[in-house]
Amino acid sequence: MDLATTLRVPLGAKDFLRGVDPAFHADMANDAATEALTAHNLKRLREGQVRLYAESKRGLLICLQGMDGAGKDGVVTHVIGAMNPMGCRVYSFKQPSAEERAHDFLWRIHKCAPARGWISVFNRSHYEGVLVERVHKLVAPEAWQARYRQINEFERLLGDNGVTILKFFLHIGKKEQLERFKGRMDDPAKRWKVSEADYAEREHWDAYQNAYEDALAQCSPPNAPWFVVPADHKWFRNFAVSQIVADAFDALKIGPPQPRTDLAALRTKYHVG
Amino acid sequence: MDLATTLRVPLGAKDFLRGVDPAFHADMANDAATEALTAHNLKRLREGQVRLYAESKRGLLICLQGMDGAGKDGVVTHVIGAMNPMGCRVYSFKQPSAEERAHDFLWRIHKCAPARGWISVFNRSHYEGVLVERVHKLVAPEAWQARYRQINEFERLLGDNGVTILKFFLHIGKKEQLERFKGRMDDPAKRWKVSEADYAEREHWDAYQNAYEDALAQCSPPNAPWFVVPADHKWFRNFAVSQIVADAFDALKIGPPQPRTDLAALRTKYHVG
Repeated sequence: MDLATTLRVPLGAKDFLRGVDPAFHADMANDAATEALTAHNLKRLREGQVRLYAESKRGLLICLQGMDGAGKDGVVTHVIGAMNPMGCRVYSFKQPSAEERAHDFLWRIHKCAPARGWISVFNRSHYEGVLVERVHKLVAPEAWQARYRQINEFERLLGDNGVTILKFFLHIGKKEQLERFKGRMDDPAKRWKVSEADYAEREHWDAYQNAYEDALAQCSPPNAPWFVVPADHKWFRNFAVSQIVADAFDALKIGPPQPRTDLAALRTKYHVG
Repeated sequence: MDLATTLRVPLGAKDFLRGVDPAFHADMANDAATEALTAHNLKRLREGQVRLYAESKRGLLICLQGMDGAGKDGVVTHVIGAMNPMGCRVYSFKQPSAEERAHDFLWRIHKCAPARGWISVFNRSHYEGVLVERVHKLVAPEAWQARYRQINEFERLLGDNGVTILKFFLHIGKKEQLERFKGRMDDPAKRWKVSEADYAEREHWDAYQNAYEDALAQCSPPNAPWFVVPADHKWFRNFAVSQIVADAFDALKIGPPQPRTDLAALRTKYHVG
């Protein structure tokens, strides 16, 4: 069974997340062979992106979610970073501004949907509306419960308009998270990222896992699937995301870019003699 | 004299562009030594960007201009591409939309100014308002003549708010441009870029050079300088841009990122025992 199939959350799944070991690595090792596979995937990403951009008909939306320290920034740096910035934008969704809060929760999201030929990467996403807002009771239960349907319909709209959607939950264990927080503290280059709020959120670990479990199960139709990426091993996380995105480019079957004009006529007019 | 000083356009310069050979390469060669220098600059860019992002106080705006085929896309791919997409966005300014045309020419530009900690790269820019709009008489002379001052004041506003501005005119020769157009035609991966309009614009070559000469001279104050980058040699173009941007990061003298919280207290509370 291929990796994407193993990690994909079936729509309506029960306790899918609970069944995934954050340390899973598909019997692969952190060695030169895996490194070569990941490097090959990054090359496929770059090539796929060029084809997408040249075709300029379809888009790609990649959503990254995960607990603090799960490696969302790491995936942006090590996987998304391989792409050409002309054609790829990363949007980090933090606490909404006053203007954003004055609109429905998808208003600020919709503005960041990928243009034709482009890739949008959401570092956190509209799913915060059924995660942090649910866990911290920022909205009433009826409000967040209605959002699963609203999200599915929004994503379907994008899909109807040529946008492929891939959603990755980077799954780390609670103990590994604490290790990473300590690692940040010990690294002078990463200390600035340390926030007491990240520690405080650990109190809500189980509530978050439940909220994720529901969101993944209710919002993983075939056209906009969630993947649970075991993320205790950074090298496996990067391999898995790169593999799934590269395969998605292949599935688009974008042909070589076609000329938009009569090349023979131009050649005769400007390049002969 | 260092490269940046050689290539920087002095405010009010006369015929600066006319004096630069598009094939200039500062006695450097297309060899491993230059490649190593460029690679080192790209590393400096990545490091500088991390510091800028962590500091989150200042921004960087890079404007790329040049005739078709001068290598704007190439600089994005080979220089800007080294940066982390989390913290760097590329904006390509094409023909304005109806809504954009209903506003002043800086309206659509201002929206794309870099946030604190971020880098914006303009592939074409607000300068189109004194270039293509002047050459093709899309606005009255009084309108484009007033824009030099408007541009200077706009850029000064950004500068007053912590944005460093670097503007690069990628300077290719007219004959080299035709060679590149032919190259595009012969390359199956690049054929889709060929446009008859690009050939037609060659008729206006001298008018564009004059418009550039004026724009460079009138809008190159010390806080937002123009650099004329000889661009007949792609390897020299990439080296020069990477060098000037990396030096600009150094000039910002951004210290190591500071923690935003009391690390010792957190360490005792969460990581001891």
